Formats: sequence, structure tokens, C-alpha cells
Amino acid sequence: MNNSSISRIGKLVIIGVGLIGGSFALALRQAGMVQHIIGIGRNQKNMHSALERGVIDETTMDYATALNDADLVFLAMPVGQTELIMTNIAPHLQSQTIVTDAGSTKQDVIAAAIKHLKSEHIANFVPGHPIAGTENSGVAAAQVDLYQGKHVVLTPLKQTRSHAIETVTQLWQACGAKVSIMPANEHDQILAITSHLPHILAFTMMRYLHHGTGNSESLLRFAGSGFRDFTRIAGSSPEMWRDICLANRDELLKQIDAYQAELKTVQKLIEEKDQDELEQIFYQARAIRQTWIENKNS
Amino acid sequence: MNNSSISRIGKLVIIGVGLIGGSFALALRQAGMVQHIIGIGRNQKNMHSALERGVIDETTMDYATALNDADLVFLAMPVGQTELIMTNIAPHLQSQTIVTDAGSTKQDVIAAAIKHLKSEHIANFVPGHPIAGTENSGVAAAQVDLYQGKHVVLTPLKQTRSHAIETVTQLWQACGAKVSIMPANEHDQILAITSHLPHILAFTMMRYLHHGTGNSESLLRFAGSGFRDFTRIAGSSPEMWRDICLANRDELLKQIDAYQAELKTVQKLIEEKDQDELEQIFYQARAIRQTWIENKNS
Repeated sequence: MNNSSISRIGKLVIIGVGLIGGSFALALRQAGMVQHIIGIGRNQKNMHSALERGVIDETTMDYATALNDADLVFLAMPVGQTELIMTNIAPHLQSQTIVTDAGSTKQDVIAAAIKHLKSEHIANFVPGHPIAGTENSGVAAAQVDLYQGKHVVLTPLKQTRSHAIETVTQLWQACGAKVSIMPANEHDQILAITSHLPHILAFTMMRYLHHGTGNSESLLRFAGSGFRDFTRIAGSSPEMWRDICLANRDELLKQIDAYQAELKTVQKLIEEKDQDELEQIFYQARAIRQTWIENKNS
Repeated sequence: MNNSSISRIGKLVIIGVGLIGGSFALALRQAGMVQHIIGIGRNQKNMHSALERGVIDETTMDYATALNDADLVFLAMPVGQTELIMTNIAPHLQSQTIVTDAGSTKQDVIAAAIKHLKSEHIANFVPGHPIAGTENSGVAAAQVDLYQGKHVVLTPLKQTRSHAIETVTQLWQACGAKVSIMPANEHDQILAITSHLPHILAFTMMRYLHHGTGNSESLLRFAGSGFRDFTRIAGSSPEMWRDICLANRDELLKQIDAYQAELKTVQKLIEEKDQDELEQIFYQARAIRQTWIENKNS
């Protein structure tokens, strides 16, 4: 990679120093891309731990001080807090400061930005979504290599300045990520299918065990590694997923409907004992997944 | 473990030398529990590979020779072949030979045994199900420690001799497994929830990607590790899962119905933007899962 065009960030402000914000800080620091990192967060214990681990250099709740002369603001709090944080930063944003975020949904974040930020700040706003994470949350889960080889999708607005897009792109690349650019609605649709829907299905599976069977403990005694992996994402942050469900509500509802129709088709094949078609579906499912895994690893 | 009561198996016949049968052979051999292992299987290449890896000592398609003086027959072929194999072994089974199996469903295997085996052989039949496996199949996937720390459920009939149950229990324990005994219908119900239903959901997810969206390749480009783990079980053997769907059909259909009702409830909460209840469900899901994982690892 040619680093010559990348300018180092002097002052980086991270709002929400958890798994995502903390890992961004660790990776940029390791890449030598940042001088000074200020963290803003609600949870005092978490912020203290971020300081102790050297993830951030400084923590404050004073937005004016934090944003003064900031080169980049990285929004990495749960999506549900976007409006509040936009309101908090809006009065203190300076014209040179680039703002980017890590929200799992993009149309709602853009709507909030348009609502709360001045047009000169919107021109420096680069909506983004790193497709990386684990089911763990908090700065304790932050990893320097979390973004290595992962996709980051940027969904800039028409009025976003190319300098801002390039800077954010280069920072993510310095974290080891592969950057793609697409329209926000396309992003939200893709993620509804490949991320939001599976999360809902896994959460629902756990709820069903607990609520539907009334006997989860003895059932789980005999659950194997397949069940463990299938439900891993049901260990994700409840607050984050509540917010995602609401932020991408319309698209998600559409996908749940479509999935249910598909499930009914499979159910009907089982009902009708259609061996050939069932086997065919399972072969296809396996083949698509194998091709994907091979491409992913190549 | 007190090994003094365990008698070594002289002649073990494994029908279906894949992941399950092969791993059983490897573990028993390592534990010094078996003298001679004969493998029977359809796939010549796989059987050759089983010989080469030293998983089995001998391979044959002649049931009469294989079953002569056999101490134990282990049925580890796909569940859908149970009837055929029962028919094949029935004429050659000797009175001292214990038969056990590894089928993922138990009521159908018992029905097949009652249909095809003489009552003196039924008395030596111990239906079983090792809850272990990976999404890979074939003897190449066999592992000596596949059963280490895993559950094996035995579902003996009323007429099963206790000597046969004890022998099979001790062999599984020698493989490192934890053995439980329960009625076959209870087993089939539990597994429909914790294994068969999640497999159907994961297969359906892959089918939906392919068939419902018509755009799986570009969607999968942005699928992350959550999707990868959620769909891991969709890489399982199509033939095996076709058979399981049919073998445990009634229970599975019931569970798909119940799950769909649960999914509708969650969908309604998203529709109604019921933040509190959604967050509550996600918290519960995570808590149940965490407790389970902790108990599992302790």
C-alpha cells in the first residue's frame, strides 16, 4: 500500500469507545495514523478502562473542548443515540472537521445528520459501516486487528466532499479494511438480509426455547456445537439490536415476511415428504455457502 | 474412570464409515477397547481412505462374513438407509451380537428394528445418538476426539438387556462422552428443537439468499462472521438432513409452526416499534445463552 498520500490525523474524537470505537483507535494508533485520541462515553467504568488500556489519551464529557480543532469525529455509539449525539456535536463542529460513523444502518443516520447538522458539516460527513464485530461489547472487547480484511461500506451523500471520503477511506485502509462505496438504501437492504434478519432469527430461537417450550435448561443440556454457532449472534448487545430493528424497520419487516414465505415452502416440502426437492434445496444451500467461504478465504 | 469392568470388544463392525463411524473407530482404538474393526460402506473411495488411514482393519460388502462372531455392530450410515441395512444384517445377526446406532432420530430407527429384527436381536439393540459432529462428512473428517466431552443419548427399549446397555455405555465413555438415557420420543422432541429446527432455519436462509433475492453473490460479499456462524450448519450433509426431516417429520413440523408463531410475535414488536419489549427479548436471549455457555464450559 502506498501510504504517501495519507495524512496523519492530529486530533481524533471517538464518541462511544466500545468494541468498534476502541478497535478503530487501536488500529489507527498501531498504523501511526493518529496523534491524539479523545474519548467521549456514558459509561465511566468503560471510559476509565479505555484510558488504562491506552486506547484513548483523554476522556471528557465537554463537547466544546473535545471538538475544538478536531480533525475527525468517529461516531461509534449505538444507533439509537444518533439524534442525541448529533444535537450535542452540532454547535461545536468546525468547518474543517470530518465526521464519520459506524452505524449498522445508514439511511436513518443520514436523516439525523441532515436534521441536526449545518450544510457545511454535511459536506464533511461520511456515513460508514464497518462490517466487523463480535458478540462482545465494551472497550474490553476491542482488538487491534478487528478490521483486518473486513469490509467497510461508505454511503456518502451527493454533497459529501471527495476530500472527506478519501480521508475516511484511507483511515479504514490503514486499519486493514476493504472499503466499498454504495448508496445508503442499497446498504440498508443488503444488511437487512445478511445481518439483521439472521440476528432476529437467532434471538427468536433463544426466545422460543425460553418462552415457547418452558423447558430451556433441560433442552440446552443436549444442544450441540451447531446450536452454539447458530445462536452466537443472539449474544449481541440488546440495546444495539433494539436500535437496529427500529432504524431499519421497514426493510427488516419486508425481509422477515419474505423469509417466512420461504420457510413455509420448506415446511410444505417436509409435510409432503418431497425427498428429492428437500435434498436439492440442501445441496444448493451447501453449495452456495461453500463457494462463498472459498471466495472469502481466497 | 474405573476401567476394570469394561470388556474389550473383539470384533467391531461399523456400517457407514464416515465422520461418526470413523471417529468412533479412532476413539475406541486409541482407548485400547477394540481388537479388530470391519467397515462396510457404499462409497469405495471412502472405504479405501478409511483403510489407508487405519480407521478400519478390513472392508467387505459380505454381511455374512462381517457379522460372524461380531461383538458389536455400529450403524452409522444416514438414517434413510436404516430399513435397508436392518434387512441386510437381520439374517446374519448372532445371538451375542450387540447392535447400536448413531441416528439423529430414534423413534423411526426403533420402528425399523422392530420390523426387521428378531426379538432376540431386539433385546441386544441399543438405540443411540451421539450429539457431536461437524458440518463435514466422510471418513476424512473423522477425529479421534470428536466425542470428548460430548453427550450421547441412549434410548433403550423396555426389552433391551441391561448387559447390552452397559456395554454400549462403557464404549461411549471410553470415547470420552457423557451418556444419558431417556425415552425415544423425548429424545426426538428435544432434538427437533435444538438441532433439526436450527438446521432448517439455516438451510432456509441460504435458499432465501439464492432463490428469494436472486442476487446472492453480491449480498454475500458483505456478509460477516455472524452470518458465517449462523449458517455453518447449512453446510451439513444434504442426504442426512433430508432423511432427518422425514424421520422426525411430525415433531419438526410442529416446531416449525411454533417457531413461526414466535417470529410473528417479534415481527409485530418491530412493527409496533415496541422498544422496551424488543430490548427485553434480546436481553433474555443473551442471558439464557450466556448461562448455557458457562454451564457447558464448566
